[in-house]
Amino acid sequence: MTELATPNAYEALSDEELRARVTALEAEAADIRARGLSLDMARGKPSAEQTALSRPMLDLVSSTTPLEDDGAVVDNYGTPDGLPSARRLAAQILGVSPDNVVVAGSSSLNLMHDLVCRAFTNGVAGQKPFWRQGEVKWLCPSPGYDRHFRITEDLGITNVAIPLRADGPDMDKVQELVEGDPAVKGIWCVPKYANPTGITYSDEVVRRFAALRPAAPDFRVYWDNAYAVHAFGDTDDRLLNIFDALAQESAGSLVYEFGSTAKVTFPSSGIAFVAADDHDMAEIRAAFAVERVSAEKFSQLAHARFLKDLDGVRAHMAKHAAVVRPRFELVERKLTEGLGGLGVAEWSHPHGGYFVSFEGRPGSARRTVALMADLGVKLTPAGATWPSGKDPRDTNIRIAPTYPTLDDLAAALDVFVVAVKLVAARLVLEARA
Amino acid sequence: MTELATPNAYEALSDEELRARVTALEAEAADIRARGLSLDMARGKPSAEQTALSRPMLDLVSSTTPLEDDGAVVDNYGTPDGLPSARRLAAQILGVSPDNVVVAGSSSLNLMHDLVCRAFTNGVAGQKPFWRQGEVKWLCPSPGYDRHFRITEDLGITNVAIPLRADGPDMDKVQELVEGDPAVKGIWCVPKYANPTGITYSDEVVRRFAALRPAAPDFRVYWDNAYAVHAFGDTDDRLLNIFDALAQESAGSLVYEFGSTAKVTFPSSGIAFVAADDHDMAEIRAAFAVERVSAEKFSQLAHARFLKDLDGVRAHMAKHAAVVRPRFELVERKLTEGLGGLGVAEWSHPHGGYFVSFEGRPGSARRTVALMADLGVKLTPAGATWPSGKDPRDTNIRIAPTYPTLDDLAAALDVFVVAVKLVAARLVLEARA
Repeated sequence: MTELATPNAYEALSDEELRARVTALEAEAADIRARGLSLDMARGKPSAEQTALSRPMLDLVSSTTPLEDDGAVVDNYGTPDGLPSARRLAAQILGVSPDNVVVAGSSSLNLMHDLVCRAFTNGVAGQKPFWRQGEVKWLCPSPGYDRHFRITEDLGITNVAIPLRADGPDMDKVQELVEGDPAVKGIWCVPKYANPTGITYSDEVVRRFAALRPAAPDFRVYWDNAYAVHAFGDTDDRLLNIFDALAQESAGSLVYEFGSTAKVTFPSSGIAFVAADDHDMAEIRAAFAVERVSAEKFSQLAHARFLKDLDGVRAHMAKHAAVVRPRFELVERKLTEGLGGLGVAEWSHPHGGYFVSFEGRPGSARRTVALMADLGVKLTPAGATWPSGKDPRDTNIRIAPTYPTLDDLAAALDVFVVAVKLVAARLVLEARA
Repeated sequence: MTELATPNAYEALSDEELRARVTALEAEAADIRARGLSLDMARGKPSAEQTALSRPMLDLVSSTTPLEDDGAVVDNYGTPDGLPSARRLAAQILGVSPDNVVVAGSSSLNLMHDLVCRAFTNGVAGQKPFWRQGEVKWLCPSPGYDRHFRITEDLGITNVAIPLRADGPDMDKVQELVEGDPAVKGIWCVPKYANPTGITYSDEVVRRFAALRPAAPDFRVYWDNAYAVHAFGDTDDRLLNIFDALAQESAGSLVYEFGSTAKVTFPSSGIAFVAADDHDMAEIRAAFAVERVSAEKFSQLAHARFLKDLDGVRAHMAKHAAVVRPRFELVERKLTEGLGGLGVAEWSHPHGGYFVSFEGRPGSARRTVALMADLGVKLTPAGATWPSGKDPRDTNIRIAPTYPTLDDLAAALDVFVVAVKLVAARLVLEARA
């Protein structure tokens, strides 16, 4: 984020006024602390109201259900690419051919992990494994998803932060690094309703991804389309289909796309899938064949019966939206009422996904999160949205409004407003000392 | 296996008699070929009759089931070690404390894969990752399980075949290598009803495992107790609990134990688990935390409700035994009637598990499996039970009798008897030429 547009209101105060303001805010904080709150705006989890929407799925596979799916046997080994009905469903969600999709397990993060590991241990596209290639780098549009960054960091890969803008990653920077440095082997992307800023990559950005000519033949874009169908308002951002864009290019294999129903049906117990071109899919199948005979299939069958197709998914997601929208509206209202015009923060206004990204003054994020913890409200650790947990300007806080009840969320946001103001006022005071 | 006890009956024939015998067997084979059979004795899969036994499980989690398990939430993220009820069940199957068990996913092979990979990429017990240690070796009691061997082979680890005897691996050899060579980092074990020989490790062998003092601090025993509760006859082999044996020693961390319900409930759709001592469990949890938020939990809940505890598992396995036992009895009868006293083969007589291990004359296995394919019966590829698929004497064939119907199995065994005799007779004839 660039500098805030509005001047910092605390700067305009005299020393005396400012000290009085800090004292007043400290009194407010003391009152809050005395209430002994225990609230949580930390993780992007659906609420109980949301998971209840998928309970009817649990009735769709019972002891009398035919355990056959287009010729595939459900209740025994086999069909390592996933049940045909589940692959069709996943293909519709991602907008690809079922032939280019494998459905496996319940965690798309797990699929990403396995493919990065495979690249590390065995290599991609006939290239040497990463462990035999010296330093390997990975691009991390930031702020981004902490669990992505952790997978590559954990393997000793060098995570390189890339600015994330309103229309996607800084593509000049991405292109320069991907095309100029053969040590760059991948990039983490959440192209729609990005975690945490909620932005969606523009058509231009997607086209520039498709047009990349990587220096490394084993470079891959990890396109984590986690929120493909997760609009909660009247507007659903449009994301250009990356494989359609690739079809316009005559380039080689470039993209692994991931998705899951973790936030469509049940977190931890959805179905997860990966799509890629024919050549990459052959490699992915071969890698997965070493890991397991075949994946869990009852959950795949239940999902296909429950969601049926993309229309079914959209109808179901409309029910989620009705639960989620008021929470995001509340965040917008509370932050505007509490912080609007103060010049101490900006925040995102997403049309979908699970997060609001909050940008405070430099040096404020860690202190704000610590103060919030002290006041009884858990937030995602400051810095978590940057590689190695290091936000260079210490400005970003990820707000996850979906899990708490509306009442708890309102209470948490009221505390947040006080904490942000107190930290901002103290920062100005300290700068004058 | 040592040399066959019975002399080869074909050796006793004159050249003329032998040629006549080969001609007669070739005529039998031609008749079989003309029938255009399509039978399968290849993989260790339960039959449809067996998987049907677990169908009632599919009614135990429905839209009205309380989605709570001892305080753990089933339908949202969390509880990365698995649901408490599922951990208790797994702990009873393995005979360990629930605190030392993680339940995750549906494939124990996947858990083994992930832990070998983790050792390769990140190391074990603070040691350097395998990729930074030069050559790494893994002991493979053979004949053994092809998918085990493939995991280590795929990582470029050197698989070292170790003789598997009637009471377990050759422990003199194991001890010499584990205690003498710091490059030896692991051993694959199926300690009960071993795949494919069906033998169970003796108490003495288990105690010698527990007493190992590895040269490498990052050596681990991969104790795949896949058939812990899979007796099908009147006798259930007794396997000494490896962790009880370890408790008699004052050694450090040594064993990862694995199990699953793949052949208790549904192949591909059971629950999988791993147990280890406190120190190793902490490492395993940390590794899994990078891979996923938490594992699929509805299947865990259904399993815990269906099987309940070890008594429940035993009662359920008795139903499997009733289906499986006649198939193993048929193998024993057909082989005895067809090959008994001929001195061309021996085979195992297991009390549980999924396989009969067949040992023919040296140089016979590949030819027999190829001839069987030609006659319309699929067998596990010859050599599959040895590292890199290379059976040094080319004697071992794995017979998997559970999946076919009794009628199909009888037909396949009749073909097998002809194929074994024809190959054996031809081998003698060729040796004389």
